[in-house]
Parts: sequence; C-alpha cells; structure tokens
Amino acid sequence: MRIDIITCLPEMLDSFLGNSIVKRAQSKGLVTIEVHNLRDYTTTAYKQIDDYQFGGGAGMVMLAEPIATCIRNLQSQRTYDALIYMTPDGKRLEQKAVNAFSLLENIIILCGHYKGVDERIREQFITHEVSIGDYVLSSGELAAAVLSDAIARLVPGVISDETSALTDSFQDGLLAPPVYTRPVEWEGKTVPEILLSGNHAKIEDWRFSQALERTKNRRPDLYQNWTDTNQ
Amino acid sequence: MRIDIITCLPEMLDSFLGNSIVKRAQSKGLVTIEVHNLRDYTTTAYKQIDDYQFGGGAGMVMLAEPIATCIRNLQSQRTYDALIYMTPDGKRLEQKAVNAFSLLENIIILCGHYKGVDERIREQFITHEVSIGDYVLSSGELAAAVLSDAIARLVPGVISDETSALTDSFQDGLLAPPVYTRPVEWEGKTVPEILLSGNHAKIEDWRFSQALERTKNRRPDLYQNWTDTNQ
Repeated sequence: MRIDIITCLPEMLDSFLGNSIVKRAQSKGLVTIEVHNLRDYTTTAYKQIDDYQFGGGAGMVMLAEPIATCIRNLQSQRTYDALIYMTPDGKRLEQKAVNAFSLLENIIILCGHYKGVDERIREQFITHEVSIGDYVLSSGELAAAVLSDAIARLVPGVISDETSALTDSFQDGLLAPPVYTRPVEWEGKTVPEILLSGNHAKIEDWRFSQALERTKNRRPDLYQNWTDTNQ
Repeated sequence: MRIDIITCLPEMLDSFLGNSIVKRAQSKGLVTIEVHNLRDYTTTAYKQIDDYQFGGGAGMVMLAEPIATCIRNLQSQRTYDALIYMTPDGKRLEQKAVNAFSLLENIIILCGHYKGVDERIREQFITHEVSIGDYVLSSGELAAAVLSDAIARLVPGVISDETSALTDSFQDGLLAPPVYTRPVEWEGKTVPEILLSGNHAKIEDWRFSQALERTKNRRPDLYQNWTDTNQ
C-alpha cells in the first residue's frame, strides 16, 4: 500500500514517520508513505501557498493552484483509489472506514491548514472528506498522521500478532474489556480471580460480559448498534 | 498552562513539539509541555514497562508501578486539575471538553500503548478517560498530541487572531461554511458573487446559511442539537 501526504508542514510528520508502527511498516516494505511539501509546487517567487479569504474575516485559505499541481503530478505517476481531505466538516472517522481504506492500493491524504483549502479543490479532486473528531486542530498534519497510523497497522504483517488488532475496541462493535498484568496484588488491589484460573472458556465469557457492560455504561450509542445487529 | 505527557515513546512527540502551534505557545511562555519517559521510572534492571496480560491473549499491558511512580513524582511538585488517560474506550472528545480543559492550570496526559495500562492505574489515578474517536491507533502519543494541540490553540494569545478560533467548526455548534481565495476564476470555477460584493451583512447571512445547510446535510446529529438549542 502507498500513502502520499500533501502538506505545507512536512516537518510535523518527521517523528511520526521515523518512530511509530509506520516506520516498521515501511521498513518491512508493506506500506510506503511519501510526504510532499506544497511549497515545492508553487509557481510564484515567494512560494505562496495561501491568501486572504474572499468576503473578509480572520484566517488564511490555501490556494488551489499548488494543490492541484501536486495532485496532478502524483496522478500522472499512478492511479489513486481515494483522495482524502482531512477537515473538521468531513465525515467522522470510524473503524469501519479505516478498515475499508486499509484495503486500497494508493491513496492521497491532503492536510488542511489555516481556514482550510479553497472550496474549488474539494469540488474538483476530493473523493473522501474525513474528520478525526468533533474538535478543531491547528492543522491537518496530526489528523493525517492519525489516519495513516490507523490504516497502516491493519495492513497484514505490520503488527506482529494479528489477533491483537482483532480484539481491539470497535473491531467487534464493543469497547475492550479491562486488562491486567503483574503483580497479582498491587497497592492492595488484586487482579480478578477468573483471569488467574487458567479456564480459557470462562475467561472469554468474563471478558465478553465486561466488554458488554463497559460499552453499555460508557457508550450507550454503540451498545444500541451492537444489540440491533446481534440480537 | 502546563501539560505533562507521560509516554513510553517520547521520540514520537519530538516534531509535534518542535513545529506546531505548540512550539509557538511554548516560546511565548503561554503553555509549557513536558514529556516524561516512562522508562526513567522503572525499578527493574531491564527498564521493563510492560508484561503479558493475565488470562492470556495477544498484546502486552503497561505495568502499574512505573506509571504510579511518575505520576506521584509530578504530584509532589504541583497540584494537577486533571489526570487524563488517552484510550479508545474513553469519552469521545468534543470541542466543549477541549474548551473546558483549556481553562485548567496543570494537567497530566497519560499515553496508552500496546493493549493499554493495567486497569488498577485507571481506578487509582485517572480523572478523565478520553478517546479522540472511534478507531484504534497503535499508541496514545498521537492522541495526546491531538489533545494538546486542540487545547493549546485556545489558550489566549497562542493564535494571533482569536476571532479565527471562534469561527471554527464546532465553536458555535455548526460546521464552517466554504472558503475561497484568489483567483476569482480558477479552471472555470468562480467564487460565489456575494463574497465579492463588499456587503458584510449579506456575506455574514450567506455564511450562516451555508453553515446551516452544510451541517444539515453532513451532520444531521449536530444540526438537531443546534435547532434544539437555538429555536
């Protein structure tokens, strides 16, 4: 899988690319992530990438031209299955969408900055508008890193034990149950006895009931979806 | 404001701290962010920070002891208003919570990793469990960076024009309207005439109706909340 990230702040992604699961994915040759600096695609002497917004008001808007040039340059090299723009007014990211993105071959992720990109870029090129949540960040680079990380770890072979990803929160529509490690007793608090029993069937039952309980208490919306689907 | 981030992957946060709004906030002396490496708080020779989970199954669990030692070390130096654990089964982050966090003086953010932290740490210390969205990341560092960025940009003086933050998506319960910049005509697509009119009252009306329309189409849930509150 290949992910091309278009950004005006490439340095923001350095330690993400150099340290995380993404580094492992790249060194194993399973995922390629290339970062493209928008300033390399400007045509003006000042390498201008933004300008004041029409109609007035605070905040700059990213120019259409450098983004279009960068996208077309990438499209001339290969076919892309999705062109994703990270924006707070996009579709809120959920695990199902991450799963679907992880099956694609080539994707472009465009990072917003300032007030966002000129609307005409969205109309012209973007196939998916994605928000990582209902809050505002100073720029799209962290959102692009979040999406890339969530996708990369699902590519087969990237994380060592694939059953680990399958038991994560959300993969079965429920939150994960509590987890414990050594020591058995820590500051007067002991690990639930069932986990020490060695009875795997009972342990799985306990984990499932804890997952159900936790989802019901913390996320009644997810619990409702789960009961609608499973009962 | 002071944010202490506890992590087992401090390098993951380097370029975030060195480049973003957070760098500006720190250099202006408005926000202090300190990153604490969990391995500095281990007592074993191997600097062990995780172990197998009780009951079996894939994925490691972060040990209680180094986390407790690190938290107590910080608490001995100052009082903390919130101790936040980043976890996918936490409360889903929304702008209102970000606004509230931005008013606090000292907070600790604990990054999860692997399968998460020993449940007893959550019971003992954590005041807020926060999820940045319904998807799974390979570790909590990106989530901590997202939360820190969202908070830091709201601290007065951090972003240059505060009205810019006030017109972001979510601050008024609506998505932001489309934005345009030069040129007026780009690849046959023109900027909506109203934005060129110079009539500020009409421009504000247009933006408001676009924000309403966009929210209604893309996020009927937010639109419903907005109409419940405003009508």
